[in-house]
Order: sequence, then C-alpha cells, then structure tokens
Amino acid sequence: MEIISIGNELLIGKTLNTNATWLAKRVTSLGLTVKRITVIGDDVDEIAGTLQEALHRKPSFIITTGGLGPTFDDKTLAGIAKGLNRRLEVNGKALKMVRKKYEAYLKVGRIKGVELTQPRVKMATLPEETKPVPNPVGTAPGVMAKVKGTCIIALPGVPPEMKAIFNESLAEVVKKEAGKSAFFEKSIYADGLMESNLAPLIDKVMHNNPYVYVKSHVYTESPVRVEGQKSHIELHLSTTADDPETARIHLDAAVSHLSELVRKNGGRIRK
Amino acid sequence: MEIISIGNELLIGKTLNTNATWLAKRVTSLGLTVKRITVIGDDVDEIAGTLQEALHRKPSFIITTGGLGPTFDDKTLAGIAKGLNRRLEVNGKALKMVRKKYEAYLKVGRIKGVELTQPRVKMATLPEETKPVPNPVGTAPGVMAKVKGTCIIALPGVPPEMKAIFNESLAEVVKKEAGKSAFFEKSIYADGLMESNLAPLIDKVMHNNPYVYVKSHVYTESPVRVEGQKSHIELHLSTTADDPETARIHLDAAVSHLSELVRKNGGRIRK
Repeated sequence: MEIISIGNELLIGKTLNTNATWLAKRVTSLGLTVKRITVIGDDVDEIAGTLQEALHRKPSFIITTGGLGPTFDDKTLAGIAKGLNRRLEVNGKALKMVRKKYEAYLKVGRIKGVELTQPRVKMATLPEETKPVPNPVGTAPGVMAKVKGTCIIALPGVPPEMKAIFNESLAEVVKKEAGKSAFFEKSIYADGLMESNLAPLIDKVMHNNPYVYVKSHVYTESPVRVEGQKSHIELHLSTTADDPETARIHLDAAVSHLSELVRKNGGRIRK
Repeated sequence: MEIISIGNELLIGKTLNTNATWLAKRVTSLGLTVKRITVIGDDVDEIAGTLQEALHRKPSFIITTGGLGPTFDDKTLAGIAKGLNRRLEVNGKALKMVRKKYEAYLKVGRIKGVELTQPRVKMATLPEETKPVPNPVGTAPGVMAKVKGTCIIALPGVPPEMKAIFNESLAEVVKKEAGKSAFFEKSIYADGLMESNLAPLIDKVMHNNPYVYVKSHVYTESPVRVEGQKSHIELHLSTTADDPETARIHLDAAVSHLSELVRKNGGRIRK
C-alpha cells in the first residue's frame, strides 16, 4: 500500500510528518506492507498526478492525509476527482453528517448558526461514486473510493481526526485485506564493534535466514566520528509471514544467530 | 527541488522522518522550493526508478538521505548507479577520505586495524562520474552528481552526519542556485471563530495579496469535536519573492489585512 501526505506545511519543514509514521506503523502491525510515502503540496494537479502514478503501481490501498477541511487550501478532493476523472458533487450522506455536526455544535453553544455556508458544504462535496466515512471527532468526513483493485481512502490532516477515522472505520478493512499475514520485529543492541565490523555478520545472518531482514542503525549522542564510536548500534530484525507463529519462529532464530555471531566476534549484546 | 528518503525503517513507522523535515526547512530558508518528498525502502530497483521519475520532473536538486553505510542494507549508491545507467567503481578520492577516517579511529584506540575490508571499501564505491563530499563527523562521504540541469546529492541517514555534510559543503551551493530569492513566513492565531468562519476571510486576503499563501491549521489538545472548538486556529502566512525586502512587504500587508478581517468578524488575534 502507499501513503500520500498532502500539505505545504510538510514541504517547508514546518510540520513533522507524524501522520505518515503513525499510519505506516498501524498498517504494518496489521500485516500490510507500505511501499511508498509521497509528500506533496496543496495543489490540485500535483494531487491528481501523484494519485495516478500511485494507481499505476496497483497497491491494495492508497491512503491520503490532509486537505479535507473547509478552507481554500484544502484541495485533496478536487485533486482526487481530477485524478480519477470524476466530477465533484454534493454527497447527500456526507452533507447529512456535516449538518449533524453543526447542529451538535449549536446545542453546546459553540456556534451561533447552523447555516450550511459554502465552506461547510465544501466538506460534503466529494468526487462522484465515492462514499463518506464518519469522523468521530471532527467535522469533515473521510472519503473512500474503489478503483479496480485499489481502495483509496482520504483522511483529514488533523492527527486526532485522522487516527479516529482510521481506528473506528478502516482498521478492520485493512486487517481483512492482510488476512493472517503478520509482521514481527525485534531490536538488539551491539556494543564494542563498529558498523563495518558488523556488516559481514549481518550478511551471514540474512543469508541463513532468508525471511528475516536485518538493518543496522547507528546512534550517537554527539555529532563526532559516528562510525568511529564503538557502541550503541541497533540491529533491527523484522519479518513478515503468512501467519504469526511462522513469523515468530523465523525472527527468534535470526535473533539467536546474530547474537551468537556478535559475541563470537568480541561484541556484547544488550536487549 | 525534491527529497528522496531511503529506508525501510521509515516505511514500517519505526522512525520519524526528521531528516526530510530538517532539509526542507533549511532549503526553504535558503530560498528554494521543495516540491516533493518521496520515501521508499532499501531496494535498488525502487531507488533507481524513483530517481528516474524525479529526474523527469527536472528539479534543480535531488537530495537523497540514507543508505550510504557499510552494511548490506545500504543500497543507495547501487540504486543511483542503476538509475543513471552508470557503473559502480571504487572512487580514489572517496577511498582516501575513508582511509583517513580509519587511521584517525586507530590513533584514538577505537579500532584495532585499519584494513580496508569490503564493507569499508563499499563506502568509497560510487557511481562513475560522481564526486565524494567530505563527511566531517562520520565515515561515509556524501556523493554529488550533475545530470543535465539537476544536481543529485546523496547524504547519509544518520542525522548528525547528514546535517554536517549539508551545512559544511552544500548550503552554499543551494544558496547560490536560489540567488536573492527569499522565503518569509509568519503565524498568527485566531480565537473565537471556527475554521469554516475563517474560510471566506482567508479567501479574501489571498485574493487581495496574490503573492502570499495562507494556510489554516486546527490544533486541539483533546480529540473531541475539532471544528467545533472555537479557539486555537493557526493562520500561517508565507511568501517567496525575488528579494527579501519585497517578501517582507508582501507578508506584512497580508498579516495586517487578515488580522483586521478576523477582528471585524468577532474574532481575536494572538501573535
């Protein structure tokens, strides 16, 4: 699957893309593999083009974040409509969802009128043949569309709204697609060896454990001679299998093998 | 310009992509515009294909992060070589840089031997017709290549190394490309109005200040009824102009105009 993050604030370095990281972690834990995250600005043509490129790669899901709100800079639905060559139209179900939100806001005194102004109707204006997904904590609904084998899901950029819609309405859909497929991961930490000394050991473990991916991460407190520091190298092992039991067995075997090799070569393992 | 972030850890949601955010902020402040950030995994074909796609869009710069180290999972240079249809070869200058690093590590007792093993030579094995960029704080050099109008720069994924190479060797190159072009931004905060009430005011300001982009951001402490909360909406104004003075004048005019409209419509402005 792929994630498309939409928002100029991401491209000027104003905002860390925590939405993509959260989604990637959730989706991976549910058993699917994220192949690509694309970050683009609030521009209808960019959104349309990026969506078309992603569709060509035929992922099971494309999840977009950002750009569903009432203001001018919220252009995701116009971009998706253009990318799918569909018209935008006021969606009856979505309008009902939006209206109910404003009625609730009025009740608790948060607004003075429930009038469905143009910016408010905008949040219910979806590409043809898509369906709104309820937003438990905000106003703008999410949007879902099926295009051949791909399920496109548009989520808001406000993190609590994005998370609530995913958790309440979409996690089950993703889980169903993933089936029994399971992702397992574990990190161990090697002291006393440099990354270039660990390299051949990692190669050996990956060769003998073909289903397990090992990645080394160098951390350093101070920005001096990173490869020259002997300590604090994380070895992250991960695997995806058709069922959890197989994944766990594969992972445990590789962790044991790598730990043993590190110790034999004069390193220490911290778990 | 474009950023390509390489690393499975980003796609499984293990690591926040702080490198892309840092680079985007730095490059924007130097006067260039980031058009796209693409995050892909440690896979030679993915890297090659993504690089080719980016080159087709003819950006001034493509900066990659990650995948320059000594281990098997570091595949960026193989991917760039494939994407550019160039061979990988041991680069004399790069090998000299790497050797000097290990001699220094030996001197301070961090390693036992300076032998240039295969994983160590790997860090000096670059695509043909590229040049190494000194790494002030780590071992693996950065790599720079010119392809028609695009300057490709490969930086390590370890944040202090990435930042040090950019600051010491590349910031000036980027600044030169940007010329006098300047990016200015300012945020003001509107209380007492909902985002859907602010929408027409933002539209008016953008219409009257065509060089300034206004984006609203809704923040909330608790994940309840975000659009329903009246307070804490950030209005972020930004502009890029051919010189700093013009940028500042454009921005100040739009800030004044928007503040006035918010107040006239019953809102309060916090700066």
